[in-house]
Formats: sequence, structure tokens, C-alpha cells
Amino acid sequence: MTAMRIEILNTGTELLLGSTANTHGTWMGQELVKLGLRVQRQMTVPDGQAILDSLRETTSRSDVVLVTGGLGPTSDDITREALAEVLGVEMIEDEAALRSLREFFEKRNKPMVRANLKQAQNLVGADILPNNNGTAPGIYAPPRLGGDPKCAVFLLPGPPRELYPMFHDEVIPRLKALAGVDEIDNVRELKFVGVGESDFHDQLDDELAKIEGLEVGYCARLGEVDLRLIGSDAVIEQGRELTLAKFDEFLVSEDGANLETVVVRELTRLGKTLSTAESCTGGLVASRITDVSGASSVFTHGFVTYSNEAKSQLIGVSGDTLVAHGAVSQEVASEMAEGARRTSGSDYGISITGIAGPSGGTADKPVGTVCFGIAGPNGVKTFREMHPRSRRDFKQQASQRALDLVRRALKADH
Amino acid sequence: MTAMRIEILNTGTELLLGSTANTHGTWMGQELVKLGLRVQRQMTVPDGQAILDSLRETTSRSDVVLVTGGLGPTSDDITREALAEVLGVEMIEDEAALRSLREFFEKRNKPMVRANLKQAQNLVGADILPNNNGTAPGIYAPPRLGGDPKCAVFLLPGPPRELYPMFHDEVIPRLKALAGVDEIDNVRELKFVGVGESDFHDQLDDELAKIEGLEVGYCARLGEVDLRLIGSDAVIEQGRELTLAKFDEFLVSEDGANLETVVVRELTRLGKTLSTAESCTGGLVASRITDVSGASSVFTHGFVTYSNEAKSQLIGVSGDTLVAHGAVSQEVASEMAEGARRTSGSDYGISITGIAGPSGGTADKPVGTVCFGIAGPNGVKTFREMHPRSRRDFKQQASQRALDLVRRALKADH
Repeated sequence: MTAMRIEILNTGTELLLGSTANTHGTWMGQELVKLGLRVQRQMTVPDGQAILDSLRETTSRSDVVLVTGGLGPTSDDITREALAEVLGVEMIEDEAALRSLREFFEKRNKPMVRANLKQAQNLVGADILPNNNGTAPGIYAPPRLGGDPKCAVFLLPGPPRELYPMFHDEVIPRLKALAGVDEIDNVRELKFVGVGESDFHDQLDDELAKIEGLEVGYCARLGEVDLRLIGSDAVIEQGRELTLAKFDEFLVSEDGANLETVVVRELTRLGKTLSTAESCTGGLVASRITDVSGASSVFTHGFVTYSNEAKSQLIGVSGDTLVAHGAVSQEVASEMAEGARRTSGSDYGISITGIAGPSGGTADKPVGTVCFGIAGPNGVKTFREMHPRSRRDFKQQASQRALDLVRRALKADH
Repeated sequence: MTAMRIEILNTGTELLLGSTANTHGTWMGQELVKLGLRVQRQMTVPDGQAILDSLRETTSRSDVVLVTGGLGPTSDDITREALAEVLGVEMIEDEAALRSLREFFEKRNKPMVRANLKQAQNLVGADILPNNNGTAPGIYAPPRLGGDPKCAVFLLPGPPRELYPMFHDEVIPRLKALAGVDEIDNVRELKFVGVGESDFHDQLDDELAKIEGLEVGYCARLGEVDLRLIGSDAVIEQGRELTLAKFDEFLVSEDGANLETVVVRELTRLGKTLSTAESCTGGLVASRITDVSGASSVFTHGFVTYSNEAKSQLIGVSGDTLVAHGAVSQEVASEMAEGARRTSGSDYGISITGIAGPSGGTADKPVGTVCFGIAGPNGVKTFREMHPRSRRDFKQQASQRALDLVRRALKADH
């Protein structure tokens, strides 16, 4: 376990107003745990004077401070200036940063306004961290800049699409160097779908606790659990075997790949194609599949058949079946999956039909009812489940289950 | 503008490890803004000594501290004891709290263990806040308990299903009394799409700054900006008029509704229907539309035509057009939009075809190229744009633009 004291400082009035969820703390916490590092504190402060005060506080008690936000072009973006004041160093214009800024605007055919010039300012003695996804470069002030007590400070952009790549490319290597190699343990992440964190607690925790030198962490999201094993290679392998003896069927990946990536990867490896027929998930399954680069070689047709008419017209669900069993039924799910497969000429067809709510439920089929069909070379299977959740969580959970059914079908058939 | 300094202190090691997302800060921030109150700072600390330290810090600089977590029955639940130490008061067993605890366990037919007794402990002079959804009652220590400087402290349970009702029933009335009615301001949120935060800074900030008593805040996400106006009704209206004089065409809503909600609402109001034909967005536009409750009455058919074959087979894009202009072209976008409209019988059809990357770009059509078509009763319009971003951001930005094209078409036609 490292002794390096790391603190996160999120800046931005909007975070305190609650109009933007502060997901940075959670995300960075997870990333640091993967390195065997820990966050000691996280703080959110509004734009303005509080940034200066909190920079003073945090740099005086920690070894590393990770700051997000306040690097924009406007007058309330004062993080750079505040850090210069706290560390007692001057600011200069960075030529490379200025060049990148100009290129950013040229590429997009947009004029660079005067306010952006400020984003090319650096602290004397600090590193500029390139930002390939936005205008605000990051800044790294190494410990020597921090006077006494010495503290390393990272200034990072607020938007996740800018922050995440910069964190991986620029922050992690520097943190590793600061922490020293020997402080960093190995980490293995196993991703599971279709099983709950409490199942692991009930069936596995006591046994994992007996493995000396193994640290265990869980991260649970809707319908999925990541298990992190931290320690030497030998104890990680011991923990892994214990885990898979019980939960192998739910294992999605051991290399960080998410469910949709694994599905696209397996389809590609097997040379098979997939089509989707979605009612209640409304295109979410197709969208998740097409989030994966290379999806075009295994996914050609997606049907969002939100109405009964569309189900019949596009993928040949029979009107009789719709009348006899209703749109949310295993019978309709079966015809949807087969219809998608037949119409598109794909090897597999997956279908989802359900009641997302908040309205539309009945005593027989309450909100949260969802039916799935998976059609393939060996016929079609259907499932009926209940996921009484908010509309968006319901869609997410149903899409998760649909993708997992594809994963399982590929595994069973090959 | 209120002068009451409110701070949030979230306790719990799991929050810093990132295994549980800290949603309390966001949620409370939103609830407080509704009252016209502001959070000055939010801090997350691990269980243990850090709770004591941070209680000392926060109570010495704020008027109100809202603490979550650490009220459970186990040995690392030390928030009560830490507050007693910081305020310098004794603890006593609260008879009513003990009775509630016993009832809680009786009702569930579970034994009450000795450790739970600790949850009936109160600080002398503080109020017990009943918890109808769990075992941990909250505690309210009024300002007079806090010595000098005086600070009011709320100790609240961590689980949202316990925290939220207690916050509404017990915390809000006390906060209102503490703040006094006249401190409470109004807030108006205007949502814009298709315009950048920097445009507001360039064209509006200086003028808004001249309105005395008006506070302005921005929150920018990919392709959208929220503008918050805070102050009296009169100054908010003044700021609103200034803003709309320049940015009216980009205004999506004034009631917090997001773009997809506005599109579904407008379609519903006008009694019109929409269909989607998506290539590079892969179902994301359909999924966003179906995130909105009530979408089924205006959205019936969605086509995810990821391959050329699907474009021809499902929505009748001509093979000649595909060969002559390529799949990513305004010509194909036009035929896709019209084909979706014709096939589904909808009033409007929106199409998106582009190169999400990272591969598939050419010199002529680099990664990030995207074409849109919007077909309606008055014909079809097409657009070609560049959004060179990561795959997921590209999809998000393209879906944003597609929904905005629908919004604009509805506005122009009616």
C-alpha cells in the first residue's frame, strides 16, 4: 500500500449547483485504485476565490493534488493563475500550446477568439499536457515547484472526453514515477454480467479473505460487477481460480473489455453477423454495438420496431400473434428475433420487447416486464423477465441482458 | 443572494475508492438551488480520523454543514461521536429513538443486535431526525450547540432511500427557518443547442454583467449550453430578454427539458410522427427519442442501416446513388430521410450517415465527416458537417445535430 497522499479538487460552480453530476471523483478513484493508489480526500469548490483557498489547503497537506476544471477561456476560469500565486511562480505563454490551439481552430474552420489566448499560458517550470480533444491544455507542476512542503499539482480539463484521455496519457505515467515502481501492485480486473455484488459477498468473500496478500475490490453497476484483484501475480492467480470456480458462466472479460466489445469481438472472430429487433430498448442495443470500432463487419441491419405495425411490416411479426399474446410476449419476441435474422440474412437475431414505463403496465404485464428472443442457426430461445426500474435504467438493464444473451449463444454454439 | 454558507461533507471510504458513485453532492445541490440556497463546498473524506478533522474545519468556516454517512451500527461509524467531540457536548440515549429502533426490527421480525443500540445515541441539546426507511436516525445540532463561530450541523444517513425522504421532511424546513424567507432567490435555466459557451462569452457576458443583482452561470456539454440566471424575477426577465435577442434560434427550453424531450413534446403537440434512418449513429438517435416517456405516440419506425445493402433493402436508397456519391454523401442522406419517411408513413424522416472512425476515412471524406437529411411535408434538406472526435463523442454530437434539425424543421413548418 502506498503512502502517497493524493487529493482531488474539482472546481466549478455548476458541480455545486447539482446541474452537472460530479463523476470525476468516482472515475479517478477507480483509475487510481487500479494503480494501487488511494485518494485521501475529494473536494468540490465553486469558481472564484475558493479555488485559491483550496489550492493552498490541499497543496500544504498532500503529495499530489489532481485539479479539474477552470481551464477554459473565460474570466471565471482562474485555476492557472491561482496555482501560480499559490506556488509563487510566474506565468509565460507556451509556444507549442499556442500552436496547438491555432491548429485546433483551423481544423474546425472556426475563428480563434482573443479569450482563447489565455489557454496557452503556462507556469514557469511546469509541463504543458496536450489536449487532443479540446482547447484547454493541462498543466503539470512537479514537486520542486511547490516549495515546502512539496506537492505535485495536475491541472486538468473538466469535460470527461478531454479529461479521460489526458489522465491516461499524461497523468498516470507521472503518478507512477512519483509513487515509485515498488509501491505499485499488480491489478487484474474481471468483468461479470448477470450476477450481483451480493452474490460475490455471500459466496466468495470469506474464501478470498484467506489468501494472504490479496486485496479485493468490487465495482458494481446496473447488471454488472467488476472484481479487482490486487497483489502479486501468484496471489492474483489464486484468487482468480477461486472466483472462476464459482462464477465462470458470468465472466465477460479479463482485459477490461466491456460487454458490447466482447460481443463484437466474438462475432468477428467467428465470422458471424448479428441483427437487432428492438421495441422497448428503442435502438440502445444497436447503439451500444456500434460504439465498438469494427462493428460494421458484423452488424448490418437494426430494426427499431416501436409500433405493432412496424413489427409486422419490417420483420414479419404476424398480426395474429400480436393479437393473441400482445406485443410484450415471448411469442412476439420469438417472431421478432427470427424476423430480424431472416430479413437481414444475419447469422443471429436478438429481440427485445417490454414495458419501460412509467405508463403502459397492466396487472398481467406490469411496468418492467420484458421479453427477449435470440435466434440463431440452432433455432430460437425466448426469455421473460422483470426489471421494475426507471425508464432509462430499464433500457440499460434490458440492453445488458440482450447483449449477454448474444454472448452466451455464441459461446454455446461454438 | 443568500449569505448562508452551506457545506456538504460526505463520509465513506467506498466513495473515494470509486466503488460507489457519490451522487449525494449533486442531488443536494439541486434541492438547495430550488430553495435559492447555495453549496459553498463539498468534501468527501474516508471513515476514521478524517471525519473528526473535517468536521472541525467545516464547522469553523460555515453556517450549515450537511454530513452524510457514518451513522451505521459498526465500529467505523463514528460520525456522532466525532461531532460530540467537536462541539464539546455529551451524548445520551434517546428514548424515542430507541423505541423506533425496536419497532423497526419487530416489524421486520429480525433480532436487534447490541451494536444497533449505538444508533439511539443523541447529542445533548440536539434533535433526533426520524428515519422511516432504515435504522439510523439523523441528528440536527442547532447553531447554539456549535459554540463560536456558531454552525448548524445535520448528520444524515448515507443510503439515498433513507437520505432523500429525511432531507425533504426534516432538513428543508429547518434550512428555510435558518435562512429566513427573504434570502431566497429565483433561478431560471435556459437550454441552448448548436451554439458554444464561448459564443455567449463573446457576445453576451459584458451586457449581462451590467444588470445589477443578476448572477449568471453556464454549464456546457457536447453541443449544448445551459445558461442559469439567478436573482429577482425582474432581473431574470431582463437577462432573459437580452439573451434571447441574440440566441433565440438556439433556445431549446426554459423548463429544464432536454433536446429529445422537446422534440417528442413538439411532435406530440403538433400531432406529427417521426422516423429515423441511422448509419453512423447506429441507433443512438432512436434510443434518445425513446428515452422520453410518451415517445411511442410519435415514433414508430427506426432503421439502423449500417451497410449499403440495408440502406437499399430497407429504405430504398438507390444502388446508383450509393455508387456515384458513396454512402457518406448528401445525396444518400437525402434518399435515406425520404425512404424512412415513405416506408414508415411518418410525417418527418431524419437521416444520419457519416464516418465515426477511427478507421474508414479518406482524403475526400476524413473521419468526422457526417451528412444529415431531414425530410418532411415541404421536401427534404441536407447538410454536410465535420465533427472530428472520438467515436462515442462523434455519435453523440451527430445525434445532437440530428435532433436539433428535427426541432428546427418543426419550428419552421408550424
